[in-house]
Amino acid sequence: MISFARGIPAPECLPVDELADCARVALERDGKTILSYGASSGYGPLREWLAARHDVDPARIFITNGSLQGFVFLAQRLAVGKRVLVERPTYDRPLKILRELGARIEGLHCDDEGLDPDALEAALKSGEKPAFVYLIPTFQNPSGRTLSEERRRRIAELAREHEVLVLEDDPYSLVRFEGEALPSVFELSGGEIAYSSSFSKTIAPGLRVGWFVLPEPLERELELTANGTYIGPVLLGQAAAHEFVSRGLFEPNLERVRELIGKRRDAMIAALDRELPEIRITRPEGGYFLWAELGGVDATELLARAEAAGVTFVKGTDFDGEPDTLRLAYSFVSVDEIAEGVSRLAAALAVPV
Amino acid sequence: MISFARGIPAPECLPVDELADCARVALERDGKTILSYGASSGYGPLREWLAARHDVDPARIFITNGSLQGFVFLAQRLAVGKRVLVERPTYDRPLKILRELGARIEGLHCDDEGLDPDALEAALKSGEKPAFVYLIPTFQNPSGRTLSEERRRRIAELAREHEVLVLEDDPYSLVRFEGEALPSVFELSGGEIAYSSSFSKTIAPGLRVGWFVLPEPLERELELTANGTYIGPVLLGQAAAHEFVSRGLFEPNLERVRELIGKRRDAMIAALDRELPEIRITRPEGGYFLWAELGGVDATELLARAEAAGVTFVKGTDFDGEPDTLRLAYSFVSVDEIAEGVSRLAAALAVPV
Repeated sequence: MISFARGIPAPECLPVDELADCARVALERDGKTILSYGASSGYGPLREWLAARHDVDPARIFITNGSLQGFVFLAQRLAVGKRVLVERPTYDRPLKILRELGARIEGLHCDDEGLDPDALEAALKSGEKPAFVYLIPTFQNPSGRTLSEERRRRIAELAREHEVLVLEDDPYSLVRFEGEALPSVFELSGGEIAYSSSFSKTIAPGLRVGWFVLPEPLERELELTANGTYIGPVLLGQAAAHEFVSRGLFEPNLERVRELIGKRRDAMIAALDRELPEIRITRPEGGYFLWAELGGVDATELLARAEAAGVTFVKGTDFDGEPDTLRLAYSFVSVDEIAEGVSRLAAALAVPV
Repeated sequence: MISFARGIPAPECLPVDELADCARVALERDGKTILSYGASSGYGPLREWLAARHDVDPARIFITNGSLQGFVFLAQRLAVGKRVLVERPTYDRPLKILRELGARIEGLHCDDEGLDPDALEAALKSGEKPAFVYLIPTFQNPSGRTLSEERRRRIAELAREHEVLVLEDDPYSLVRFEGEALPSVFELSGGEIAYSSSFSKTIAPGLRVGWFVLPEPLERELELTANGTYIGPVLLGQAAAHEFVSRGLFEPNLERVRELIGKRRDAMIAALDRELPEIRITRPEGGYFLWAELGGVDATELLARAEAAGVTFVKGTDFDGEPDTLRLAYSFVSVDEIAEGVSRLAAALAVPV
């Protein structure tokens, strides 16, 4: 089975030997701190490095065992039984977390430029004030879409105007293969909105190092939640990541990752253009995913036929997308597997239902 | 301030250099697995090592980022709005977690031999069937008490008879300074009850490696909860711990830890016998804590005077204990600090209120 389902980095992206040495050196230098019960907000030196990078006070940085864990803390604190605005489609894991907490999720209309700010404004002007607005503006999961700069500015203004907490989830923006980087909504808001990211796509997911930049009072509240849940996060992964960035390995590693994954994106788009010119796809300049619209063909039915033909993907409805949409991940599979997988997909799509 | 409050190991207990090498070697050998998204139930080889140690199928082993995180998963799954039986006094963190989930906590009577099985039986015979029974039978936090073997057998029988889930939390039993080890309630139940432990007291707390032995269907449910919360736990700490035990470093390290902490226990008891012969204390054969009964003196008032005199502890009411009780941790402070801290405590106690 060729998997276009899993949004994980190809194994060759992982800087194994460098991290082995970084973990050793971090422990030798600061082992008594790393191996004892630690601060609930994360490893101090990494908190400082991230604070400098985001140009904020370290007290606003909250590091968790992967950013999803931080999202759970945030949602537990703010979203129980409340209204939450999200892009439609959006990342399935936050949807599931919010649903389990009894949040009322409202999906906002998106087009090729990402979230429609008019839809956001209309939602903010009507109904209960949302607990927060959850956005993935860059190389979005699942759609691969990127919010335009003009829309970013407008959303930053709407956040200020309506005094609503916007969380910009930004794990992919550094994995850009081409084109100009855009300022984050966080930057355009003057650092006022909330922001989250992680090293999962830029160093290694297994480190489970995610972080949030939060308003300070909210950071302190989530720190207490973290303390009551796991006392402190695992500092070893954070300290290894800190050693990695301190050695100047971050940028060269990113270059390597961009090239490795960019080739896969190229292969995926070339194969789709060749074999399935009739379906509409997004053409992301970075990230892990692209989105396909099947023009009326039901993706759930296609998935069954595709899996029978030896290729899998995630159907759009898992992300609250339309029934004729699907997400294709090109991050994990090899260039050869991509060509073969798209052929199998085309064969499955050619079968009359 | 001399702290008898924090139940953490003295820094010299932490095998820093060994773990630095273990982390490096584990990554070099199995980095592609450790650094990618991993199994939600923990690092495979460690799961197998733990399964062999507890003589169960690996499918029953659930490893989390510290055992408290696993307790949160278990409580979220089973205890929301339900009745839960605990020892009185008991560890404050589970109490807080259960309260926040709206569990109805019922504290059961304990004496010098630990939980009174008659109290457990009476509670099981009346009222709603509890979601589970939470016990720390060995060197209990906070009391330092150890459940007698006879009572262990009886509790194992009660669990079977009433078909109630008993969770034996057992982080301290291997930190035994003297006396004969007792079989766990888990062992006496033929592996039927649930069991949890961690490497926090036997290797290093900062690794955040805790584990549960659960009925298999419950393990699968909690695995899903873990997946929805953090995808997978941090494998690096688990892999370093696995390398540590695989090299045969676990037993020699334990011997070292037992000696280091045993001396502190000796110093604490000697100082209390010398300076405060009038208060009643437990005399644990292992673990981190002892319990003092002040014979009517209010521990909250004493705490204020003690902190003014430069020594601190945790008052018994934090553990749902009586107002005239307190917990003294001897694990972190040096032998000299213990002598000085107990002198300060005696001075604070001598001040007439």
